[in-house]
Amino acid sequence: MSSPIITLTSDFGSSGAYVSTLKGVVLGLNPKVALVDISHEIPPQNVAHGAFVLGSAYKYFPSDTVHVAVVDPGVGSSRRALLLLTEWGRFLAPDNGLLTYVLMDGRLKGFADDLLGPDKGEFLSPVTAPVPDGCSVFSLTRPEFWLQPVSDTFHGRDVFAPVAAHLSRGVTPERLGDPVDEVLRLNIWQPESRDGIVRGRIIFVDHFGNLVSNILSSDVPAGSVDMEIGGTRISGLSRFFAEGTGVMALIGSHGYLEIAKRDGSAADQLKAGVGEEVRVAKAGRAMRP
Amino acid sequence: MSSPIITLTSDFGSSGAYVSTLKGVVLGLNPKVALVDISHEIPPQNVAHGAFVLGSAYKYFPSDTVHVAVVDPGVGSSRRALLLLTEWGRFLAPDNGLLTYVLMDGRLKGFADDLLGPDKGEFLSPVTAPVPDGCSVFSLTRPEFWLQPVSDTFHGRDVFAPVAAHLSRGVTPERLGDPVDEVLRLNIWQPESRDGIVRGRIIFVDHFGNLVSNILSSDVPAGSVDMEIGGTRISGLSRFFAEGTGVMALIGSHGYLEIAKRDGSAADQLKAGVGEEVRVAKAGRAMRP
Amino acid sequence: MSSPIITLTSDFGSSGAYVSTLKGVVLGLNPKVALVDISHEIPPQNVAHGAFVLGSAYKYFPSDTVHVAVVDPGVGSSRRALLLLTEWGRFLAPDNGLLTYVLMDGRLKGFADDLLGPDKGEFLSPVTAPVPDGCSVFSLTRPEFWLQPVSDTFHGRDVFAPVAAHLSRGVTPERLGDPVDEVLRLNIWQPESRDGIVRGRIIFVDHFGNLVSNILSSDVPAGSVDMEIGGTRISGLSRFFAEGTGVMALIGSHGYLEIAKRDGSAADQLKAGVGEEVRVAKAGRAMRP
Repeated sequence: MSSPIITLTSDFGSSGAYVSTLKGVVLGLNPKVALVDISHEIPPQNVAHGAFVLGSAYKYFPSDTVHVAVVDPGVGSSRRALLLLTEWGRFLAPDNGLLTYVLMDGRLKGFADDLLGPDKGEFLSPVTAPVPDGCSVFSLTRPEFWLQPVSDTFHGRDVFAPVAAHLSRGVTPERLGDPVDEVLRLNIWQPESRDGIVRGRIIFVDHFGNLVSNILSSDVPAGSVDMEIGGTRISGLSRFFAEGTGVMALIGSHGYLEIAKRDGSAADQLKAGVGEEVRVAKAGRAMRP
Repeated sequence: MSSPIITLTSDFGSSGAYVSTLKGVVLGLNPKVALVDISHEIPPQNVAHGAFVLGSAYKYFPSDTVHVAVVDPGVGSSRRALLLLTEWGRFLAPDNGLLTYVLMDGRLKGFADDLLGPDKGEFLSPVTAPVPDGCSVFSLTRPEFWLQPVSDTFHGRDVFAPVAAHLSRGVTPERLGDPVDEVLRLNIWQPESRDGIVRGRIIFVDHFGNLVSNILSSDVPAGSVDMEIGGTRISGLSRFFAEGTGVMALIGSHGYLEIAKRDGSAADQLKAGVGEEVRVAKAGRAMRP
Repeated sequence: MSSPIITLTSDFGSSGAYVSTLKGVVLGLNPKVALVDISHEIPPQNVAHGAFVLGSAYKYFPSDTVHVAVVDPGVGSSRRALLLLTEWGRFLAPDNGLLTYVLMDGRLKGFADDLLGPDKGEFLSPVTAPVPDGCSVFSLTRPEFWLQPVSDTFHGRDVFAPVAAHLSRGVTPERLGDPVDEVLRLNIWQPESRDGIVRGRIIFVDHFGNLVSNILSSDVPAGSVDMEIGGTRISGLSRFFAEGTGVMALIGSHGYLEIAKRDGSAADQLKAGVGEEVRVAKAGRAMRP
């Protein structure tokens, strides 16, 4: 039998002992686990960044993987600690929106049905949402599976790491907590299409400075298109980075429309970041903001 | 039988091959080892930072773990290479103070008995100290367990990595070196309490900019307290980060009094770092520096 | 039997999910693999930096290791994906010069015979070279071993990771692609010795700001020597970092002449980087540029 995998995602950085502390706790409880870092360079307290990174990675791991995600500015407060069970992975995270993209997986239904349009409140703010069909969520409430004494400032070490280890050893979810039917979700509007113009937003900036939008390839009009972002117009989609020159648009590896710059950073060049509007229309069409 | 764990702590950074070179050497000698990175982002040559990080992590690892720590500006000189054996872990490091916090573990006695007060010399400078009761230290002197030829600039690769691998395979300390009874220690004064005021110092700044002091929760007076650091007064202890507003004080996950800033960096806000004085007293009491 | 090792080298950084995506793909195909990161902090699109890092690390790994290197600005274009087989490791990388130092290994013959001197074209630009004797190279051409659908922007995930996993499970190179007899090489001139002066160049700047040249210790004249770099003269070779004061020269752990600064960065101090000329001659000799 192969080792169970536990992945770790956090804003703990790499200059201190926080990450390795979690690993020590896990290995002390289950030495057979294979630990895989997703990222520990989530910008401090940036739940939206962490949510996107976790949402990009989990699909490529075996379905019995336990994913631990800790970007947790509310640690010690009344915010809940969650366990999410799906057919393609188990997830441990604070209830603050960090599981948003996992819960928006197309194989689940009913989580984000009301997300269309900018009249839905502030982009990326947390809102309450029902647990979608096809998965189940527990609130971790059983301190007998936690590291004692439990601190008020480091539940990654004291709650999430030991619970992940116990899960990987076969402890059932019912012993770890109580089922819940609502969770917090980041308010990610879906792109809107009106008068032939698709309007989306940048939801992630990657390590290269590529600007990833929430516009799926299926949202992009057929035929030749133009893009606009922050006053810059881009003609046509490139197929790969070396095909473009300067700032370009392409369908990136996440499946979304991306704005990139050849051998450089589109984010720096355009001074654009998360939340910035991106517009797409048939080539030549005017696109007023 | 589960794999033995070897942890690695260094200032090697992540842009080059230094860290992976150690791993290749270890895995070549013992393929069954589980390697865990504690941190490789110790600021270059910063022994005090590395000592604190190692001292924060080791307690959470199984007791047969081999911890390798290499922050080693004196590599190639006459500085010794050490092996420290305790009941809660084995440690390999240059003799430059990197093992200070491990040797100050409360379960060992006699290492830091003379540490009280600022008349003890420069804060964090290295001083000679006796090996405490309850552990043993060896100087690595047997080149037959090293990678040949041994360089003068990279003992992480040529001495510490191969010795760690041999240790994990059961080679006894006596074959690896000779016992010693003194080691170098960073001169970390303990907090001083006088006239109702506890005076400590910042000993570590973490990834979030939290300022960790050397004042233990047991050093803090009972009841309501005020803190002062660099001219800023903080009223009362917060229990967790989301409870405070702006700059706050709390007992952090290391067990020490910490100065933090909600959703930000206390180090940036206060322009404070390692060595800065922190004072604690009952609420309302004047605290002249 | 011990786990096969797969190493990873890339410019993917650590703030996103790219690296872990490769790991998920590999572990999904071969859960028994031991994954080791060489570096993911290769500066974006910097093939020369990646080539040096890979070239520094591979020698320390077991000979059946599979090394995956992805610094790949040409992804999606007609650039080939290569598998290099040697007696001391197997290598997967785009055909853009990333394997240059591996192919310059002294145990291979005929790769860099024409490299002497600055009349050989631009330093570090890619040039075509024959596959040397003693190894073999395949172009990956069999999509049945790739992740489907294959993207045009992320062959690390879609081509290199799955092929590495299949290799580690015993799939033969002949099933993965077709043999080739030429590859791209970075144009790294060898040092030139004329009139008693050895002229080399900086080929790598490490995490500490040490400037690594392409001058081997065997290229350095016997006896007392002086070095010159960017108008700064350095008298004599130091043996280790703590022996020198200020800017010094020594034979570093890579085996090359290095310019270093005690407890600091020579790169910052001298404002020097890759490509900068370094001259060595017997002590006291004039060295005009």
